[in-house]
Amino acid sequence: MARTRQAPTPPPTFVARGRIHHVAIVVRSLEESLAFYRDILGLPFETVMDIPQDRVRIAFLSAADSKIELVEPTDDTTGVARFLASKGEGFHHVCFEVPNLTEELTRLGIDGVELIDTAPRRGAEGPVAFLHPRSCHGVLVELIEAPGGPAWRSLGYPAA
Amino acid sequence: MARTRQAPTPPPTFVARGRIHHVAIVVRSLEESLAFYRDILGLPFETVMDIPQDRVRIAFLSAADSKIELVEPTDDTTGVARFLASKGEGFHHVCFEVPNLTEELTRLGIDGVELIDTAPRRGAEGPVAFLHPRSCHGVLVELIEAPGGPAWRSLGYPAA
Repeated sequence: MARTRQAPTPPPTFVARGRIHHVAIVVRSLEESLAFYRDILGLPFETVMDIPQDRVRIAFLSAADSKIELVEPTDDTTGVARFLASKGEGFHHVCFEVPNLTEELTRLGIDGVELIDTAPRRGAEGPVAFLHPRSCHGVLVELIEAPGGPAWRSLGYPAA
Repeated sequence: MARTRQAPTPPPTFVARGRIHHVAIVVRSLEESLAFYRDILGLPFETVMDIPQDRVRIAFLSAADSKIELVEPTDDTTGVARFLASKGEGFHHVCFEVPNLTEELTRLGIDGVELIDTAPRRGAEGPVAFLHPRSCHGVLVELIEAPGGPAWRSLGYPAA
């Protein structure tokens, strides 16, 4: 405690991070969880999407500059479905926005972080990659590239 | 994606919500987890605080308008210590900012939400209350009153 009160000098690899893009919650039913997060807690509803390749349906609710993502597995073959079966509903991952995802993954790999995705891949809202919870003190961390970054072009997203 | 729906009409209880104030992560050691979240992931360090009445030490890192809170139990008598012992390090709760916490808790109680705190209590960064994960699809939700709200005065926080 006494050792950590002052903000330390940033290490050489320091890159200022952006916002929390979203917090994802695994749920049994989008409809039932929207009845709480949208109708009772009052978070403004944004959209519902089917992501057939991931076998999930997702809903986004806004919370100022961040979002809450509700994730409902649509069959029992995926990691997220096994998560729901073994742990029940609850927090799944937190996603931070970064300016250049490829550079970030290279840097994190050099720093010894265990990468689930070693290169950006297509996510519902932009290029994404996951870091293993073993490297992140038990938290599944997703990174998303900010709109207009280089991976948007290389992964074929339409120009903004 | 093709099935994206329009935002429905807000229900009568709708109140626009504020930002995600913070996402809290339970860790074994603030120093070890800062070595990841601050030094490798690069989130700007804000502060470390001892909260003796809760038997924890906490660190805040900034992520644009939100924060990451790292929580280290300082003995083994608390709920957060039992959480760490049984589940290991990981996500603990998400905290949303609301304009008037007393009004919010009244409304949520009427809506049948199970309240851990039925009235605002003093938190490290303002008046707070927790909602039970049973009512929030497996997620422990904290609410914090925005600075200047009525509970700041009634709980004796210094005027802003």
